[in-house]
Amino acid sequence: MGRKLVLIHPSSTFRIVDLGCSVGPNTFIAIQNIIEAVDLKYKSQSLSSSSSEACLEFHVFFNDHTSNDFNTLFASLSLERRYFAAGVPGSFYTRLFPRASLHFVHSSNALHWLSQVPKEVVDINSPAWNKGRIHYTNAPNQVVEAYFAQYAKDMEVFLHARSEEIVCGGLMVLLVAAIPDGTPPSLSILGILFDLLGCCLMDMAKMGIVDEAKVESFNLPAYTTSPQEVKALAKRNGCFSIERMEAILPSASNISFNPQTLSNHIRAATEGIIKKHFGSCSEILDQLFDHYTKKLEDSISVLKSQRTIQLFVLLKRNTNVSC
Amino acid sequence: MGRKLVLIHPSSTFRIVDLGCSVGPNTFIAIQNIIEAVDLKYKSQSLSSSSSEACLEFHVFFNDHTSNDFNTLFASLSLERRYFAAGVPGSFYTRLFPRASLHFVHSSNALHWLSQVPKEVVDINSPAWNKGRIHYTNAPNQVVEAYFAQYAKDMEVFLHARSEEIVCGGLMVLLVAAIPDGTPPSLSILGILFDLLGCCLMDMAKMGIVDEAKVESFNLPAYTTSPQEVKALAKRNGCFSIERMEAILPSASNISFNPQTLSNHIRAATEGIIKKHFGSCSEILDQLFDHYTKKLEDSISVLKSQRTIQLFVLLKRNTNVSC
Repeated sequence: MGRKLVLIHPSSTFRIVDLGCSVGPNTFIAIQNIIEAVDLKYKSQSLSSSSSEACLEFHVFFNDHTSNDFNTLFASLSLERRYFAAGVPGSFYTRLFPRASLHFVHSSNALHWLSQVPKEVVDINSPAWNKGRIHYTNAPNQVVEAYFAQYAKDMEVFLHARSEEIVCGGLMVLLVAAIPDGTPPSLSILGILFDLLGCCLMDMAKMGIVDEAKVESFNLPAYTTSPQEVKALAKRNGCFSIERMEAILPSASNISFNPQTLSNHIRAATEGIIKKHFGSCSEILDQLFDHYTKKLEDSISVLKSQRTIQLFVLLKRNTNVSC
Repeated sequence: MGRKLVLIHPSSTFRIVDLGCSVGPNTFIAIQNIIEAVDLKYKSQSLSSSSSEACLEFHVFFNDHTSNDFNTLFASLSLERRYFAAGVPGSFYTRLFPRASLHFVHSSNALHWLSQVPKEVVDINSPAWNKGRIHYTNAPNQVVEAYFAQYAKDMEVFLHARSEEIVCGGLMVLLVAAIPDGTPPSLSILGILFDLLGCCLMDMAKMGIVDEAKVESFNLPAYTTSPQEVKALAKRNGCFSIERMEAILPSASNISFNPQTLSNHIRAATEGIIKKHFGSCSEILDQLFDHYTKKLEDSISVLKSQRTIQLFVLLKRNTNVSC
């Protein structure tokens, strides 16, 4: 990353944002790493140009949905930090910053969330109606296509917003869950996990515990992309060059197929959406996730068939393009 | 205000901060007024220079202590706002922003809070020990002097931090509670209210409801300044010129001497500090403020003797001074 850094106006403020920061601590670690890399680059430039290194100041913005717990995030900020901090509430599928104000954009494990469920999949009259499922995994092609269309639309909005906010030459690092090119969508770990959660909800509907119509109208707004798709969408936007793209395969020891751990993880990620759709009923949620944990126990071999990778994408805002 | 505005780089971002914003809605109204004034000025400049008016973007920062409820603040942001918003946690008695990054600083009804209780007033061996009181109102001169010294120190830190953050020619509007020059400190409304609260705490200590030693070590970190003091402190700092200073006398109809209203107001302002010092005990707090409301009922004439004014101060960051 250090080699790709272009320090524009190195004597002024270097502005960084983490999009989809949650409440920490991962966001603080990422910011620390970015600052160290920029600082190293800056110091080497300063030494060669004999200018003072005391000039660089960092302004760091932590972004997530308005419903994110910013109070907890702020309380967790280190008192020893060497940057000025600010919280930015709002969806990253909108403009969040003034024109050409950011030097470095970071987003980790957030861009698989869509801005909304594709309308067609909950439309009973559409060929893409996703009956009996809550995700596109193992669904007919029309459903998968509707999800991809939403992802493509969201990425277009995302890249356009960022192209306005990032200075020419500025960098953007995206860490996204992906499946290798040519892999069936059903082999995404998130897809498998969501599909099994959908089965549990359908089971509960059949048992009369939850309303079947409610399950039918419920879909999770998440999509697992591929390297090819990211390349094509970046090309279509045209404001960024892909400086580097790498598939980071998680080492086997890092993957936990522990059913309880996975169940807790998915509960944390989806509880808000489920509560909003079905109405808050923690008893039913407990029942759902107890059932889900058992379902995961019986599905270890399916889970192990997953082929998800972590995609590292380094983009640079083109200097000669006005988007 | 419009006449004093200097639009530096009018084609870029105009950055505004409200220091001590609380959770709204006052902060949103203040920001709206500032943006309208800047916009008006900008449009008149744009018309005369024929440049496009579409270029100006506003970045607004909402600042308060880390313990402020930023979640509520963020949820209250208008969806129709025409500015990019960010929350900035931290005391305004520290640096909060990068160098020369702010064009307009606003702070209303916040600067009377000191960064801390002056150490001497809770030191039993100091001549400024504030025995039997929780504030400097009706206290010996040494206590008043210790409070003023803390205020002067805080304002020095405040002005120095802002002088670094505000661009040359940038403006700062401070709205502060004050007493007219030459008025005895005991005639500040806040002072009278705090003094009566102190009496209630002493009463409760005598009744054995709260620990007397705890009351003795309790002081409220607030100071009511005067126009002369503000002038002298700004002059000592040297980075700002006072462009305008006006005493806004609240109209008689605006002052509420309703004991219950005043009691609620003071409870909201001090509950956090009291809880922190005495330990959280809502029962005792209820008892304290019931007693306080009655005390206020008996003190209407003292309250009406108050001579507090609202001081409007418009400062401009000097362009020829490096502080």
